[in-house]
Amino acid sequence: MRISGAGEVDALRSFVGVFEGCEELLVGPGEDDCAVMELGDDLLVQSSDMFLDGVHFPEEATPRQVGWHAAAASVADVASMGARPLGLTLSIAVPAERDLGLLGGVAKGANEAMRRAGGCVSGGDLSRGELCVDCGVVGTVSGDGPILRGGAVEGDAVCVTGTLGGAAAGEAVLVEGLDIPSRRDAVGRLLEPPLRVDEGLRLAGSATAATDLSDGLFRGMEVISERSGVGLTVDPERVPLHPSAVEAVEAGRDVEGLVDGGGDYELLFTAPPGEAERLGFPVIGWVGGDDVRLGGSRDLGGYDAFR
Amino acid sequence: MRISGAGEVDALRSFVGVFEGCEELLVGPGEDDCAVMELGDDLLVQSSDMFLDGVHFPEEATPRQVGWHAAAASVADVASMGARPLGLTLSIAVPAERDLGLLGGVAKGANEAMRRAGGCVSGGDLSRGELCVDCGVVGTVSGDGPILRGGAVEGDAVCVTGTLGGAAAGEAVLVEGLDIPSRRDAVGRLLEPPLRVDEGLRLAGSATAATDLSDGLFRGMEVISERSGVGLTVDPERVPLHPSAVEAVEAGRDVEGLVDGGGDYELLFTAPPGEAERLGFPVIGWVGGDDVRLGGSRDLGGYDAFR
Repeated sequence: MRISGAGEVDALRSFVGVFEGCEELLVGPGEDDCAVMELGDDLLVQSSDMFLDGVHFPEEATPRQVGWHAAAASVADVASMGARPLGLTLSIAVPAERDLGLLGGVAKGANEAMRRAGGCVSGGDLSRGELCVDCGVVGTVSGDGPILRGGAVEGDAVCVTGTLGGAAAGEAVLVEGLDIPSRRDAVGRLLEPPLRVDEGLRLAGSATAATDLSDGLFRGMEVISERSGVGLTVDPERVPLHPSAVEAVEAGRDVEGLVDGGGDYELLFTAPPGEAERLGFPVIGWVGGDDVRLGGSRDLGGYDAFR
Repeated sequence: MRISGAGEVDALRSFVGVFEGCEELLVGPGEDDCAVMELGDDLLVQSSDMFLDGVHFPEEATPRQVGWHAAAASVADVASMGARPLGLTLSIAVPAERDLGLLGGVAKGANEAMRRAGGCVSGGDLSRGELCVDCGVVGTVSGDGPILRGGAVEGDAVCVTGTLGGAAAGEAVLVEGLDIPSRRDAVGRLLEPPLRVDEGLRLAGSATAATDLSDGLFRGMEVISERSGVGLTVDPERVPLHPSAVEAVEAGRDVEGLVDGGGDYELLFTAPPGEAERLGFPVIGWVGGDDVRLGGSRDLGGYDAFR
């Protein structure tokens, strides 16, 4: 079977299904946002994210934004485990005809994101080729972590650490020419996603499940639902919208499409209602039932593993 | 300046020079085979290696060999620190028109190498694009490690953990049609490099400096020399040759070119003469003087950072 004809399940099965694990590996490939490994009395998390020109980088992205975005995506995986990023390796392939400043710009963006996240770039690799950036990250788990995807229980509240829809509004500005007053902010939200490390650390010990919203709200709900064996329902009207998303809605865009557009990199988590209130993040839904519902009527399935 | 016109120093400076480090980072980007980070009472090592179709993979390589080779290169970085590989992330981009078996094959090869090395594949990422494989590795340091590149002192012996020249012979078979009796072994040595984890662990506490020979003997000597601030001299006649390299020499190939061809992934290390004898690995040279000499006459400089 060609890869172009393979669905998410086939592709993942033929890849993730192969890995055998080892004694120290507590949470393995495909199970959560990061792997979890035992190291003496400590727990480590590890993850990687690859970005390719023409697939992941809009041409409007500056080199610095490419580096920030790649590092931030890895930081998000660590943050959603309630862990702290430690070291990031930055591997990059660059076309020979590009300016040397591209390398330095990507490095600067990744450096800035990692410093802001409380860790640092620890190493990397340089190659010549089609532009490709891969970040490998390792992080440390606090005493209360890690937060896995599989702990949500019936009656929990569903919460989010910030506003959604800004990245989708930014994508609409770039790709479809959506004309909204805050178009620059929207594009900034898309190209320079936020870091939610402190928020993730606050959740550790309180949240029952968490994941980062790199691939949209519905996908985030789905992975928590699958791992926890419970349904989740989110009311789109209760989802806090990014100001650019509000403008996009006023310009006729669909709320559900915006909050599900992906790229917001906020954390979606579940917690007992009392804990959710104490944490102070917006409650947008509840855990219960058998299925995953965004607005109660729409099935947003059919996602692409290769996204 | 275009990347095509930039030399190793320019490219590395514009990349590695940017990274600021953090409190836990003891050995940072560009300083050694791996970064070294403090985690409570433990030390971690971290590294990454990127491989691209048309640059690093001969078309004769099977998917399994591509996966093995990518993982083995990361394992070599960890082994040369006297550390033990723990988790490996395998990020891969694959063209949509390739067979799904490519994914599974690469995964199998990486899984096999990591299991053999005492660790495991912990995660990864899938994308569509030109074939690109990046491995991020994290490893743990024993009480006696890590072995850095900078500890070689005048009077040390220079040693190697195994035979050299086999990978270069394999490359000559594939690229130039070199006809030697052991051509299949030679190609195998090129496409499935050995894992020297146990050897690296044995060296910890005894070796004063070490690096892996991914980029050839002279480059290995050079990085130890640069970091240690001493010269190294190696006698090519004392370098143990892979059987295929012996055949290549008999077929008219140059010994120095073979041992310097790269891809052997043995460990090059320095140790006090008594320790070197005790460890039982072949002594091929000595530490002293101001320069790096292979055979005493040949300058093999001008290496490519993008290799």
